[in-house]
Amino acid sequence: MTYCVAMRLRAGLLFASDSRTNAGVDHIATFRKMNVFEQPGERLVTLLNAGNLATTQSVVSLLRQRAVGQGAHLMNLTSMYDVAELVGKTLKEVVARDSDGPGQLNQGVDFGANFIVGGQIRGEAPRIFHVYPQGNFIEATEDTPYLQIGESKYGKPIIDRVIDFDSSLAEATKCALISFDSTIRSNLSVGLPIDMLLYKTDSFAPAQPHRITKEDPYFMKVSQGWGGGLKRVFEQLPDEDWFA
Amino acid sequence: MTYCVAMRLRAGLLFASDSRTNAGVDHIATFRKMNVFEQPGERLVTLLNAGNLATTQSVVSLLRQRAVGQGAHLMNLTSMYDVAELVGKTLKEVVARDSDGPGQLNQGVDFGANFIVGGQIRGEAPRIFHVYPQGNFIEATEDTPYLQIGESKYGKPIIDRVIDFDSSLAEATKCALISFDSTIRSNLSVGLPIDMLLYKTDSFAPAQPHRITKEDPYFMKVSQGWGGGLKRVFEQLPDEDWFA
Repeated sequence: MTYCVAMRLRAGLLFASDSRTNAGVDHIATFRKMNVFEQPGERLVTLLNAGNLATTQSVVSLLRQRAVGQGAHLMNLTSMYDVAELVGKTLKEVVARDSDGPGQLNQGVDFGANFIVGGQIRGEAPRIFHVYPQGNFIEATEDTPYLQIGESKYGKPIIDRVIDFDSSLAEATKCALISFDSTIRSNLSVGLPIDMLLYKTDSFAPAQPHRITKEDPYFMKVSQGWGGGLKRVFEQLPDEDWFA
Repeated sequence: MTYCVAMRLRAGLLFASDSRTNAGVDHIATFRKMNVFEQPGERLVTLLNAGNLATTQSVVSLLRQRAVGQGAHLMNLTSMYDVAELVGKTLKEVVARDSDGPGQLNQGVDFGANFIVGGQIRGEAPRIFHVYPQGNFIEATEDTPYLQIGESKYGKPIIDRVIDFDSSLAEATKCALISFDSTIRSNLSVGLPIDMLLYKTDSFAPAQPHRITKEDPYFMKVSQGWGGGLKRVFEQLPDEDWFA
């Protein structure tokens, strides 16, 4: 499976994805699930994906192959809304192509995929969208400033507790690492390394994705500090013998 | 939806269930999802259920209606293994009955349900089982001393971190309340009150389920203490400006 999260804060954007792909637990591979399209000074568009690998790779390949020339594409659209719509349209195109043909060929395979699409295009504020397998999409708001795809439930409670629109990028980074740590501990199908990209509002700076392995010193510090801290909080909470 | 958890520790058993039933968010009702069959001094059998309410109510009603007389039933079976098998068999019977008939009648309804079945019968150690919609079942072991059904993912990380076979019943109680609190915060379809039952190994004492509402002083203490403690641990973890 997969776990990806994106946050849209006043200070900027965070994107993070795991890199485990599996078809059954005996077939586990590492694939990057973060793709960046950028023109520093002008635009940054980041895609995170979850779901059928053939579908997500095809969608990204087509978007990249078409990101030149005159027609509307990821490098010339003038709003992130239009970018989300294009991703949704391309997703529908790929799923229609791959699931076409005499019925039994599909053998019950789910061709679906989810994308998080976000970034900033000059003239607009930073925005993030969740594109569904059906090609439609929702946008994160100030009230709910994050989006998740894939195995999202294990790592949701910590985000709900500590992140709001005014959180800093450093807090977002710390929270995202904890959210991944909780997910990885509870679900075999999500695995390190984590790809993370931070973007400061209006910076239009070149993207510098960071690949976080299990030896990353900050990840180790957060993971151990969080685990130990939780146990201390747990131990310090009072017992009650309602039931004694 | 639903969230239920059971733990089987050296010290005894814990059972806990939420009580929200919904068919769409505009139709929310409270139903007890914990059912106890007991003969103090001899046996305690507890059922927790998740899934189609018509199915789970029918299974419990049939088990109760049949728990008298000569045939094999919940009150005279001599092992928890046989009890789990009977619950699975009754579940299959109900699903087969309700989904029988001219095809279109079902209208795509999922008649499935999951049960946690546990307790102690004199002559055996305490045991807990997860009965699947297909009627087959697994048993919790010392390595993995808990079982969950329903919306289990939000509340799983805390259990994975703090519970093992040698945890006390007080620790189990505290952990279960935190697990429910995390789930309720992140998922609208799980709601208070929580029904909780603790059982001490070899006690064969009368069951005293505890209904935990949002005004319960211990639940409030744990919920607030945990939320505040998490925030403190989070704030105390170092920031890092990899990405500055």
